Amino acid sequence: MLKNTIYAPLKAYICRTLNKNMQFKIKDIAILIGGTVEGNSDVEVNSVGKIESAQRGDIAFLANPKYEQHIYTTNASAVIVANDFFPKKAVNASLIKVEDPYSSFTALLTEYSKMKLMSKVGIEQLSSFDDSSTIGSNPYLGAFSYVDQNCEIGDNVKIFPHVYIGENVTIGDNTIIYSGVKIYSDTKIGANCVVQANVVIGSDGFGFAPQENGEYKSVPQIGNVIIEDNVSIGANSVIDCATMGSTIIKKGAKLDNLVQIAHNVEVGEHTVIAAQAGFSGSSKIGNHCIVGGQVGIAGHVNIPNKTSIGAQSGIMTPPKNEGESYFGSPAIGLMDWLRAYTIFKKLPSIDKEIKDLKEKIVTLGLNSEE
Amino acid sequence: MLKNTIYAPLKAYICRTLNKNMQFKIKDIAILIGGTVEGNSDVEVNSVGKIESAQRGDIAFLANPKYEQHIYTTNASAVIVANDFFPKKAVNASLIKVEDPYSSFTALLTEYSKMKLMSKVGIEQLSSFDDSSTIGSNPYLGAFSYVDQNCEIGDNVKIFPHVYIGENVTIGDNTIIYSGVKIYSDTKIGANCVVQANVVIGSDGFGFAPQENGEYKSVPQIGNVIIEDNVSIGANSVIDCATMGSTIIKKGAKLDNLVQIAHNVEVGEHTVIAAQAGFSGSSKIGNHCIVGGQVGIAGHVNIPNKTSIGAQSGIMTPPKNEGESYFGSPAIGLMDWLRAYTIFKKLPSIDKEIKDLKEKIVTLGLNSEE
Amino acid sequence: MLKNTIYAPLKAYICRTLNKNMQFKIKDIAILIGGTVEGNSDVEVNSVGKIESAQRGDIAFLANPKYEQHIYTTNASAVIVANDFFPKKAVNASLIKVEDPYSSFTALLTEYSKMKLMSKVGIEQLSSFDDSSTIGSNPYLGAFSYVDQNCEIGDNVKIFPHVYIGENVTIGDNTIIYSGVKIYSDTKIGANCVVQANVVIGSDGFGFAPQENGEYKSVPQIGNVIIEDNVSIGANSVIDCATMGSTIIKKGAKLDNLVQIAHNVEVGEHTVIAAQAGFSGSSKIGNHCIVGGQVGIAGHVNIPNKTSIGAQSGIMTPPKNEGESYFGSPAIGLMDWLRAYTIFKKLPSIDKEIKDLKEKIVTLGLNSEE
Repeated sequence: MLKNTIYAPLKAYICRTLNKNMQFKIKDIAILIGGTVEGNSDVEVNSVGKIESAQRGDIAFLANPKYEQHIYTTNASAVIVANDFFPKKAVNASLIKVEDPYSSFTALLTEYSKMKLMSKVGIEQLSSFDDSSTIGSNPYLGAFSYVDQNCEIGDNVKIFPHVYIGENVTIGDNTIIYSGVKIYSDTKIGANCVVQANVVIGSDGFGFAPQENGEYKSVPQIGNVIIEDNVSIGANSVIDCATMGSTIIKKGAKLDNLVQIAHNVEVGEHTVIAAQAGFSGSSKIGNHCIVGGQVGIAGHVNIPNKTSIGAQSGIMTPPKNEGESYFGSPAIGLMDWLRAYTIFKKLPSIDKEIKDLKEKIVTLGLNSEE
Repeated sequence: MLKNTIYAPLKAYICRTLNKNMQFKIKDIAILIGGTVEGNSDVEVNSVGKIESAQRGDIAFLANPKYEQHIYTTNASAVIVANDFFPKKAVNASLIKVEDPYSSFTALLTEYSKMKLMSKVGIEQLSSFDDSSTIGSNPYLGAFSYVDQNCEIGDNVKIFPHVYIGENVTIGDNTIIYSGVKIYSDTKIGANCVVQANVVIGSDGFGFAPQENGEYKSVPQIGNVIIEDNVSIGANSVIDCATMGSTIIKKGAKLDNLVQIAHNVEVGEHTVIAAQAGFSGSSKIGNHCIVGGQVGIAGHVNIPNKTSIGAQSGIMTPPKNEGESYFGSPAIGLMDWLRAYTIFKKLPSIDKEIKDLKEKIVTLGLNSEE
Repeated sequence: MLKNTIYAPLKAYICRTLNKNMQFKIKDIAILIGGTVEGNSDVEVNSVGKIESAQRGDIAFLANPKYEQHIYTTNASAVIVANDFFPKKAVNASLIKVEDPYSSFTALLTEYSKMKLMSKVGIEQLSSFDDSSTIGSNPYLGAFSYVDQNCEIGDNVKIFPHVYIGENVTIGDNTIIYSGVKIYSDTKIGANCVVQANVVIGSDGFGFAPQENGEYKSVPQIGNVIIEDNVSIGANSVIDCATMGSTIIKKGAKLDNLVQIAHNVEVGEHTVIAAQAGFSGSSKIGNHCIVGGQVGIAGHVNIPNKTSIGAQSGIMTPPKNEGESYFGSPAIGLMDWLRAYTIFKKLPSIDKEIKDLKEKIVTLGLNSEE
């Protein structure tokens, strides 16, 4: 009588992340970022910090000369510095010299974050994985996660606790699904995506046909959502399924938190959408666009490539040309709007001027009648 | 020592949706939608598609004559067509002839969606259902769902995984609660409602009394939420409980995603609220209203029946009459706002005109003084 | 092979809230709120109600004399009244006389709500609590909740079902975490906080560096979130972790539902933020500020103490002085904006006036040329 797959059918690893034991020797980090060590190259670090507040065991960086003072007092075990940096006093930390300390530090962080995530491996007990579904190598499936029938999940996919994955869902390699994400049936998610906590993907589109009696009848929403590779989706955002066909988020698009994507929307490649922006049904936005926070896009509007839309603006009519900037609600060209708003702020004095003009004209009229 | 109800106390069905085996004969579908078959009436279909991209096993429709060409090449196994459609060439698909192909197709989809959902039956293991609560016939209770004490849940209710239902909650027949929905204690939900994933119902209202020292003290929120029949609530929306009494969503109201409903709000019957709109505490909106996306409603405002509010508008003062349209923030009558905005966009040239007028008047003044 | 901590390692109480049996004698309530009883002081109450709709077993209050009529017909078992209230007719209910009935009633509600919550004690089965983490006395840990490694959780903390708590998280005494909250690693939460359902804390900040080819590369987000004491966070809100360092919500701040707090934001002490407001990266807001619903704050903006920002406004440039009010998008001083908007609404008639003036001037010019 038991649903026999409810106890994870894959080998139940002792699921424990390794990062507590993540210790790196300076000399290994130097190889990783292509630098050279000055000082003790066997020193180990296990975390990162700012040079002014770093602790023993941290690695920090010094890029801006105005922070140089801190290198002589820092508690960091190692500091990444520029090749042309030569300390004027004694430095306790080991140094790693590189061409560009900031970008080397960032590269290091990226590696560190990836390692931390990739070290999460195993199928935790109390997860539910249907035996008609498959998952690739090095999986993490957190406790209380639920994978329904006929899903295909790639290699190195990390699924945190409390994730729901409906039927016929595919998820590409290296994608990370954080806790509480809900993915409805038939959704397709590409490789190298990151979906933050409590995102909803594939919920029913808001389709209701008004009836003669003033009530609404729901229009069945039988499409799906397609999310291409390298897409990031911020926490608590919602992407509705299409009425028919697909709602599509194209490769490299980045969505911030609490974003609303309605049914049949298409978001172009490498388009960036800031928090709390909302796209109405069947709107389409091109590639390399930038959408500000709390922007609203009306239904069926088509936005060309490389468009910029200022925060809180509302796009009601489709912009014509590529690469232009818009502002206001409803939005017009950014510069036009700013010029008009400059005058808007002076309206009370303009109103007064007009009254003055009227009086003067009355006087002039009287004079000219004299 | 075990909480003895944690392993589902109801009969644990093998919980498996039937839709993988959902095969329908054309002749049965014809009966369902009141049509007549031309061609093989024993052909089976198991999915739907657009005529131009349908696969074998799909049923599609042809309503618009401009798509007629596709019927001669479609891979669909069956196509719903109008009674007055007569193919000019050979058609592979079986035809079902009806009065109005589009609405028959929609009706079919509605039935299909319903059957798919209703085929989900059973109490999955690893769900928690308190033995003081009751659930009706044909239930679905997904794994990792939690139903606390003294709840009454009707017939055919579908509760997906990761749903939390507090104490004393009632849920009417045929209501669907998607994954991750959180329902606080004392909430009442009617029949035939649909609540999309990660919605929160009954969270504490935002009530904080300012103290003399500039701090805030929380005002206990002891009311509840009442959701009447046929209400839909979009993903990640929030409906707060009342401070005292009830926050009420009346029958037939439709809320989109990420909508905010504060404490003691009342939403009227068959009122539609688009995504990311927000209602402040104790605001009330009448029946048959339409609220655009990202609209904000101030506290204690009373909005009459049949009001329309344009996207991103803010209602600060209560509209007086029924059936009017508003726009802007703060909103005024839609036409008034549009007329004003038309001039707003010309403000820089108006400003220049005024400067010109001033100069002319100075000149005239000088002239008249001559 | 089992993760041995998945079955709650703490003593598994029979976890059952006590509030169903919460019966209080009037005389005990009178002591609690410092009042005196008139009538039967052994009467028991177990709930609260409004005087006009209360049921037997409820306690209500009478503060406003215009509701006096109800005290003669109420079904409440007890009513809190003012010391100077003397009934003109027979009253069935027991009376508790106090200085200020409304604030005594509120104080009672606060106690009641606290007791109800604090009566939730126990570690429910099917929760996962890592054995490297610790939890204080009187804990509630709901089923399907997940606490990862090295967390420190204080006394009287209530964690509802479906909560996810990553590694190295600390939570102070008496804090309440409702169902579905997701807390990423390294988050610090203070004492006496309330976090409503489905909130996300510590998700990756929205940091993407544009590349030369028009793609974006994610900037590692390795900071954390610090939430100080007495903070409330509304349902479905999101607080991102810092890129480096900490995103900070200072003591006593109150955030409503669906609020967006980006990476490295700082929210000051006792600042109140209404629903759906959004703060961009590295913005800072001072103490005792009031932020309206759907407000947007641009990145890196610094807002002084005691600033008020009207609903739907957008702060693009930092206000200079403390204690001022702003409105509009982009916001200017509230009064300036209101004055300008008053004229904005008259723009069509102003436009006409200007046309009239032009004509008159032309006429005058002609006249003066005569």
